[in-house]
Amino acid sequence: MTYVEQLGLNAKNAEPYISSASTELKNAALSAISKALTENAVLIISENAKDLAAAAANGMSQSMQDRLRLDEKRIAGMAKGVDELIALGDPVGEVISGGIRPNGLKIVKTRVPLGVIGIIFESRPNVTVDAAALCLKAGNAVILKGGKEAINSNKCLSAIMRSAVESVGLPADIIQLVENTSRETTAELMKLNRYLDVLIPRGGAGLIQAVVNQATVPVIETGTGNCHVYVDSSADPEMAVDIVNNGKTSRPSVCNAVESLLIHKDCAEKILPMIAEKFKEHDVKIYGCPRTREILGENVLPATDNEYATEFLDYVISVKVVDSVDEAVAHIRRFGTKHSECIVTNSLAAAEKFQREVDAAAVYVNASTRFTDGGEFGLGAEIGISTQKLHARGPMGLTELTTVKYLVNGCGQIR
Amino acid sequence: MTYVEQLGLNAKNAEPYISSASTELKNAALSAISKALTENAVLIISENAKDLAAAAANGMSQSMQDRLRLDEKRIAGMAKGVDELIALGDPVGEVISGGIRPNGLKIVKTRVPLGVIGIIFESRPNVTVDAAALCLKAGNAVILKGGKEAINSNKCLSAIMRSAVESVGLPADIIQLVENTSRETTAELMKLNRYLDVLIPRGGAGLIQAVVNQATVPVIETGTGNCHVYVDSSADPEMAVDIVNNGKTSRPSVCNAVESLLIHKDCAEKILPMIAEKFKEHDVKIYGCPRTREILGENVLPATDNEYATEFLDYVISVKVVDSVDEAVAHIRRFGTKHSECIVTNSLAAAEKFQREVDAAAVYVNASTRFTDGGEFGLGAEIGISTQKLHARGPMGLTELTTVKYLVNGCGQIR
Repeated sequence: MTYVEQLGLNAKNAEPYISSASTELKNAALSAISKALTENAVLIISENAKDLAAAAANGMSQSMQDRLRLDEKRIAGMAKGVDELIALGDPVGEVISGGIRPNGLKIVKTRVPLGVIGIIFESRPNVTVDAAALCLKAGNAVILKGGKEAINSNKCLSAIMRSAVESVGLPADIIQLVENTSRETTAELMKLNRYLDVLIPRGGAGLIQAVVNQATVPVIETGTGNCHVYVDSSADPEMAVDIVNNGKTSRPSVCNAVESLLIHKDCAEKILPMIAEKFKEHDVKIYGCPRTREILGENVLPATDNEYATEFLDYVISVKVVDSVDEAVAHIRRFGTKHSECIVTNSLAAAEKFQREVDAAAVYVNASTRFTDGGEFGLGAEIGISTQKLHARGPMGLTELTTVKYLVNGCGQIR
Repeated sequence: MTYVEQLGLNAKNAEPYISSASTELKNAALSAISKALTENAVLIISENAKDLAAAAANGMSQSMQDRLRLDEKRIAGMAKGVDELIALGDPVGEVISGGIRPNGLKIVKTRVPLGVIGIIFESRPNVTVDAAALCLKAGNAVILKGGKEAINSNKCLSAIMRSAVESVGLPADIIQLVENTSRETTAELMKLNRYLDVLIPRGGAGLIQAVVNQATVPVIETGTGNCHVYVDSSADPEMAVDIVNNGKTSRPSVCNAVESLLIHKDCAEKILPMIAEKFKEHDVKIYGCPRTREILGENVLPATDNEYATEFLDYVISVKVVDSVDEAVAHIRRFGTKHSECIVTNSLAAAEKFQREVDAAAVYVNASTRFTDGGEFGLGAEIGISTQKLHARGPMGLTELTTVKYLVNGCGQIR
């Protein structure tokens, strides 16, 4: 049995204890984790320092080092995140539907945990705690595979969580970390169909694509967002500026940020300069079509299909002047990643057409795409934002970490 | 652009027409398909005869030839199946949930078609019609890839359906057949993530495993069923015999048939001979553990892990005498395929324990596993029975051929 298979077997053996655990017991485990994180902050910071030292020696960029860093405040934030899960409703055990069939069979569709979840992520150690706590609350065992740059931090966090869940009487193996971070180990994890029920990659487009291409375990894709705002001819100009600017500049590194602006030809001359003016505050780089460049001038770089297809995740945007809502929809159909798309309009017909014809997880009328988020949608917490259509689409909360089971009760019925 | 990419692009271009089609228009298309099948029965039978002749020349087994055969009665059955979909409710457009967020955003979760569905199946041409009609009713475009042995039949059926949907004003490309049945074409289809939203394999375990291993498009696994009946010590003997016999012998070739019998040691001596006697009617071959062989004699072949892991799909069963419901649950945990599992018991505690601890799509108390079926569950029709946990579990009806879309309406909210 290989190292990875052993992790899988451990998880499978531990799974029945967490899948049948009461909400009270799971909440006690979350509380113990939160408390242990706070109490062990000094230890966590010293282990994290090892990762930071190695990262600096290896020339990791400052922004990556920042993502890797854990300090008192971030540890308190992680603990608070775990605590907040306690208040959320437990999806396990929900009766979804049911009834009595003509032959007397009673069929009840109930909600049960997914089983064993694999999470593959990069070098943000907060994901280690966040993902483990969400999986736990939904009754799942979890195998965590983080980036090798965070291995000391992750080992420390995992050990703290394992000991915390044991302290309330749950097996430690409901939370396991892949400590061998070689490529081979990751490849094996992606094909561990015997033990893993689902694999959720969290991170950049490269990581997600690699998992989609290699995994045989069912995958939930998360987080690629080439999101558009289409400003219709009937749009309120101030509202359009606010929504575009908020989408682009409030937090450009996240998946629900705006990457591309489409604007109707009849309002482009008025509104584009207003947006460009606003963008100066953050020095947003603009790639535009010929008509955009006519209006905004030569400072705008020429946009090609390449720019229209790019999720910049930075203070960069592509812009295209279009002739109609149909052209906007067709452009989004070609370049969108089915995450979040927005129309700014005062036309009921345009709003309805856009919401009907654009194929995305969330389609907005007159609001920022930045709202596509588990918290903002009222799910309480999220494990990621699904951009695929199977199982979950859009923000994934606790319910999306469950599946169903049919309970069928009879009195001897045969067919 | 390759042949398969062209099919993908055609489907993607046709998809908006079917995804936004009214229920009335979709029902008109189904009606036209049903009518065209009936009217073209002679043509279908003559094209099918070419496949049958080739099959006979290639030495295909009689049972496989029977699956391939289309006659008046089977064509009428296909047409009737299409007609029956007309009466089923349309899942598209359903409002699943919604409300107003504290900031005034109106969020509505609605049901929309999956998009473009790929179906990979073997040599039963009825699947061509069945799958296309189900996908159509749920608002999806479909790309069908059947076995090469049925290519003439499938080409004929596909052409008839395409022309029928065109006759009501829908694009023919909402239904496409992969006419080039080479391995390379199939391999390409399984990685056509740009155009395909989901892939559903229908057929034997070998086909399904190949798709799971090779596909990068999200897959819904269907149909592997190593189903168990556990006869508890408190079981009613007559009921146990009926449920085991029905599960094993009413239709052994299907996935919800019973493949393995577990029986409590305290009732094995009484009930096993009753079951063996009943099995004589169908000459069921039995593989048993040592205790089974002690009770039933040397005619029972010794069972190894290999037999316990096998989905026989035939008049063959494996039998094990167990000491407790816990041992039964552990055995199912090890060998089950999470399809359908049954306990026969009069003990409330045993029934509850079994339903709670056995991890399967459908867990039965005192009824035959043969009921795991879209029709029997009241779904009206099914595209298959999912044995995975993502998206759909158990019988998949029209609703399982849809996904969700969040419609978010605001009045200028930014974050």
